[in-house]
Amino acid sequence: MTDAAPRIAIREVGPRDGLQPETPVPVADRVALVTSLVAAGVRTVEVAAFVSPKAVPAMAGAADVVAALPAARPGVTYVALVPNRRGAELALDAGLAALTFTVSASETYSQRNVGMSVDESLAQVAAVRSVVGPAVALDVVISCAFGSPYEGDIAPADVAALGRRAVDGGADALTYADTTGVATPRRVADLLAETGTDVGFHLHDTRGTALVNAYAAMEAGVVRFDTAVGGLGGSPFAAGAGGNLATEDLVHLCDDLGVTTGVDLDRLLGVSAWVADLVGHVVPSRVAAAGPRTRRHPG
Amino acid sequence: MTDAAPRIAIREVGPRDGLQPETPVPVADRVALVTSLVAAGVRTVEVAAFVSPKAVPAMAGAADVVAALPAARPGVTYVALVPNRRGAELALDAGLAALTFTVSASETYSQRNVGMSVDESLAQVAAVRSVVGPAVALDVVISCAFGSPYEGDIAPADVAALGRRAVDGGADALTYADTTGVATPRRVADLLAETGTDVGFHLHDTRGTALVNAYAAMEAGVVRFDTAVGGLGGSPFAAGAGGNLATEDLVHLCDDLGVTTGVDLDRLLGVSAWVADLVGHVVPSRVAAAGPRTRRHPG
Repeated sequence: MTDAAPRIAIREVGPRDGLQPETPVPVADRVALVTSLVAAGVRTVEVAAFVSPKAVPAMAGAADVVAALPAARPGVTYVALVPNRRGAELALDAGLAALTFTVSASETYSQRNVGMSVDESLAQVAAVRSVVGPAVALDVVISCAFGSPYEGDIAPADVAALGRRAVDGGADALTYADTTGVATPRRVADLLAETGTDVGFHLHDTRGTALVNAYAAMEAGVVRFDTAVGGLGGSPFAAGAGGNLATEDLVHLCDDLGVTTGVDLDRLLGVSAWVADLVGHVVPSRVAAAGPRTRRHPG
Repeated sequence: MTDAAPRIAIREVGPRDGLQPETPVPVADRVALVTSLVAAGVRTVEVAAFVSPKAVPAMAGAADVVAALPAARPGVTYVALVPNRRGAELALDAGLAALTFTVSASETYSQRNVGMSVDESLAQVAAVRSVVGPAVALDVVISCAFGSPYEGDIAPADVAALGRRAVDGGADALTYADTTGVATPRRVADLLAETGTDVGFHLHDTRGTALVNAYAAMEAGVVRFDTAVGGLGGSPFAAGAGGNLATEDLVHLCDDLGVTTGVDLDRLLGVSAWVADLVGHVVPSRVAAAGPRTRRHPG
């Protein structure tokens, strides 16, 4: 990792992307999840989605979650996903100053996920910006950026062009998402050749490739990653979507590579164990299951 | 992957390392497994272990497996693991011309796995060589080459020195094994700096790192990899040992990287599904579960 960044920035999406497909858990537990993640050293947390509770029951009560959070201490940022102008208004009313908005690189996925064409979805970026004003940070997440199960591969130049249009529409930052786990290090390199490395990566582990893709991206110089504690997650709208890259799996790797994350792995593993109880099932993270590489046999 | 090898050699260890911790399956099924793997394009298969059936019941009947195999067609090699001189004699009697023998880099693991010290185990390399003569290929697998759950990290220079002693004792080739899944790309690089890249890698996926380690090794120029169909495996003698790197997960990655393996992924996935039935449980491979990245949504 001689050429890698000395520090990466993790945006923890467990309370949003992670809990989204789960049976809804109480607001108080979602708040406790966010605060425990921050206590473990996570600086940026996607805390909620201001979406229709009918469409995504697990995200109901977004404003209640935000209202119950302790004030973010310096260096900590709470983020919310908003699907449209109305969601942005609600997030702003709730007091948030950082938003994510998703535009899909896949026409079919866009129609199924948000009922809009890609162009219609892109137009919402400007609409959201006009509502929130210049002071709110707006990160546009390009979903299916490495292909989709509908169209197959999507040309990296087209994906990068979509990103540029999102910036033209008012995005401050771009995150490229491997929504259904079709990326490989080759696809990572191909996309970065078009976008440059000042982008975030949001990787799903559908095919066990999230970590190798993150590694390849770090090697190339990418420093922003979305991860979810426990490796929870997966879109309810995309067949075959697996969980997110597990926060503990990335931190575990980075710790041994000498790439600082600011996250305390032991504390994070404690949160992960608690989350497994919260959602009522084993979480996908392999490090959560086996413990860190430094774990010794008791005998 | 511009600097990577254009071709890697997979040694399929599913019939040996993969089945070893499972409830024993009939000899005929083990034979069918080997032949179906070869039909999928695998060139080298570890077909059996000439070990005590009391110690490893799933490996009983090694000679029967070998006797029932079709003659290896040109380019195909059957290999067996032998634990000592007596095992080597049996494997030779069975008609095999390629053997693996394990020496551990961990003193405690060596004692627990084979009841010998590392030095005693190394001495067996020469004993095996003296039994089999110069014509038999002998690959010494250095287990716990990236550390062990007993001693923790083991200095790469010490591991490489152990490898050199194995070659002095008669090994034709060396394979370094991450027996308990503690390797990371950093540890891969550190070991390769001492050993050079003319080595095999045998990676376990205890912490979800097998694929990223294989990728890092390929990037560095390693071309020989042990894998097990389905990601089966794990030592019955090492706490926390997870399954092997899944053959289909490596082939799936290589296919998209343009690194040829000679293995037909679709046929291999068929074998993997059959193996899951054979062992009676879901296999760890993520590609087996989700299908290849090219899989389209039916809708």
